[in-house]
Amino acid sequence: MQKKGLRPIWFDLESKTVKVIDQRMLPHKFVVAELKTVDDVIGAIKEMFVRGAPLIGATGAFGVYIALASDGNTIVDEHLKSECQRIKDSRPTAVNLKWGVDRVLNVALKFSKYEDRADRALKEACKIVEEEAENCRLIGEYGYPLIEAIYRKKLENCQNSQDKGSSRVNILTHCNAGWLATIEYGTATAPIYTAFDRGIDLHVWVDETRPLNQGSRLTAWELLKHGVAHTVITDNAGGHLMQHNMVDIVIVGTDRTTRTGDVANKIGTYLKALAANDNNVPFYVALPSSTFDWSLTDGIKDIPIEERDPDEIRYVQGLDKDGKIASVLIPPEKSLAANHAFDVTPRRLVTGFITERGVCNASEDAILKLFPEYALL
Amino acid sequence: MQKKGLRPIWFDLESKTVKVIDQRMLPHKFVVAELKTVDDVIGAIKEMFVRGAPLIGATGAFGVYIALASDGNTIVDEHLKSECQRIKDSRPTAVNLKWGVDRVLNVALKFSKYEDRADRALKEACKIVEEEAENCRLIGEYGYPLIEAIYRKKLENCQNSQDKGSSRVNILTHCNAGWLATIEYGTATAPIYTAFDRGIDLHVWVDETRPLNQGSRLTAWELLKHGVAHTVITDNAGGHLMQHNMVDIVIVGTDRTTRTGDVANKIGTYLKALAANDNNVPFYVALPSSTFDWSLTDGIKDIPIEERDPDEIRYVQGLDKDGKIASVLIPPEKSLAANHAFDVTPRRLVTGFITERGVCNASEDAILKLFPEYALL
Repeated sequence: MQKKGLRPIWFDLESKTVKVIDQRMLPHKFVVAELKTVDDVIGAIKEMFVRGAPLIGATGAFGVYIALASDGNTIVDEHLKSECQRIKDSRPTAVNLKWGVDRVLNVALKFSKYEDRADRALKEACKIVEEEAENCRLIGEYGYPLIEAIYRKKLENCQNSQDKGSSRVNILTHCNAGWLATIEYGTATAPIYTAFDRGIDLHVWVDETRPLNQGSRLTAWELLKHGVAHTVITDNAGGHLMQHNMVDIVIVGTDRTTRTGDVANKIGTYLKALAANDNNVPFYVALPSSTFDWSLTDGIKDIPIEERDPDEIRYVQGLDKDGKIASVLIPPEKSLAANHAFDVTPRRLVTGFITERGVCNASEDAILKLFPEYALL
Repeated sequence: MQKKGLRPIWFDLESKTVKVIDQRMLPHKFVVAELKTVDDVIGAIKEMFVRGAPLIGATGAFGVYIALASDGNTIVDEHLKSECQRIKDSRPTAVNLKWGVDRVLNVALKFSKYEDRADRALKEACKIVEEEAENCRLIGEYGYPLIEAIYRKKLENCQNSQDKGSSRVNILTHCNAGWLATIEYGTATAPIYTAFDRGIDLHVWVDETRPLNQGSRLTAWELLKHGVAHTVITDNAGGHLMQHNMVDIVIVGTDRTTRTGDVANKIGTYLKALAANDNNVPFYVALPSSTFDWSLTDGIKDIPIEERDPDEIRYVQGLDKDGKIASVLIPPEKSLAANHAFDVTPRRLVTGFITERGVCNASEDAILKLFPEYALL
């Protein structure tokens, strides 16, 4: 699914630095960036070299190490905490960022000897990375039977009707919740890769996902590399496809999900959930437990929705005729734009969650049954 | 609302040719094209120099004249009919095209003297153009009270609550159903322009409308020229805005509406209708009667949905840094794309229609009450 060993973030043993794929340049250029300072970390998160809730969490985790290491291990607690706060403030919606930073910070602060802290922070960040990779592998395992069941049913139907062509499972996804957004496997893509690798005939409708086109740039690139049949569509198209039985299941990721099951994800996810609901298409959200916000119950009211630079809407970046990455302006120069980056899909529109501990309904009871340790928070 | 006398199509008395604005170049370049042959007409429709159901209808109407005039009035009936068929086949979804062509063709065929035909066809095409302009003016008149009522209610609410800022009416529209899509006033925009000209404080959320960005390119350009406050948003954003009470009414146009009230319009309209329904936002469709297809009852089953070149999705056109119109490639070169150009919004999601004869519910009975002459078709 990805080049052996290739991840969107890693600690480079030779240079002793944290490296990331600069995802702004994909699919047209493969660029690696080095994060040496807290400002590098914040810049990479804000400007979306890295994006996707689990990856932002991992980057934040490494950020704590970078805060310690870049200061020669002499950083005082107060300054360390304020640097960590700056990292946590760099993007507001994905709860993994706070989770990743706090987990590593809490470990580091347990050590009174400054020289131990960077080392322990690095170890904890690496541990998070491995855990999240394993969580995504498990999401693939638990999500696989959902796809397999659709395939078996379609196969049976088309064997009955002698229509050999229609057992292919059509999956729609929005944005990129692939390995680029996590560490390995992805969240939404984990069941897809798992099913594909086990021989299920499937095809993915890739929402391009305006404004930054993480679908057409990143998800399409991942699927292409892995050999998975896919078709890029506009974000407008999913409803029409569902009306005409061209989508069997929707699987998306999430940037923050309340303990009650309200799902913040890339803007436009809510519209796909409405269409899925209107056409009886199952709508699943895949996430590791690090993406649950155990403190929130009302997603629409309480999840902060990031507003980003309107120029991300006004300008579109791609490959020009000379093979260079270039931007073009779409609307009139003087027209304003607004760029809400996420929306919240209410739990009533969610068929279920696919987590590292199994699949559950979108209700607080069902979620807490899988994660009972958060029941009393 | 538009430069005095400026229309998207006109018969130029000096050159004796039909001229159109080449809308592919807007908002960055203003280019006028001349239609001299039937192939010019078909090219202009297919490649979307002209677009929008009423304008396509008018272009088809002029096309019959061009078929006659370009053949020196010697065209035989069979050839004329086949040329007209070619024009009608140039785009499948907007029913106005067939309507406009057939109306002019039927007039022309009434005249046995070949030399009369071109003259009568031109007169009929010009008559259609004037009628459609007047229809759109009336749509503005009939739609205006809907916006005014929202304004009065908001004004009252904010006078009661001392909140002076909130009487502004927020209208969301998808694609371009402005004067560029019709002749004057537009369909969806006619009530907006009318309300604006009468002093209602309003603001328009402009869906950019991928893939060809008729919203961010054309609707934004129109509104900017007219001085109407507006904000370009991605097609993904409307649901979020509605969840947060930032949209008071949705008004869209349509390419074909069944006698029962199912609405074909630019892909993505259905998703906005679902969101409007989910958030109790009124969802209106503005159309002249030429856009009703009186022969159809089931829109999702029966309205043909055009599939266009996937490159319209893969490449995005805009203004490059040198001020030239350029295209950039978004997804990986080898990823496929699919480009369904329209979807159908079922009548259960439509609050009402705004027509040249008034406003009605989305039901066959209500529509036929306004247009009883089609009851027996």
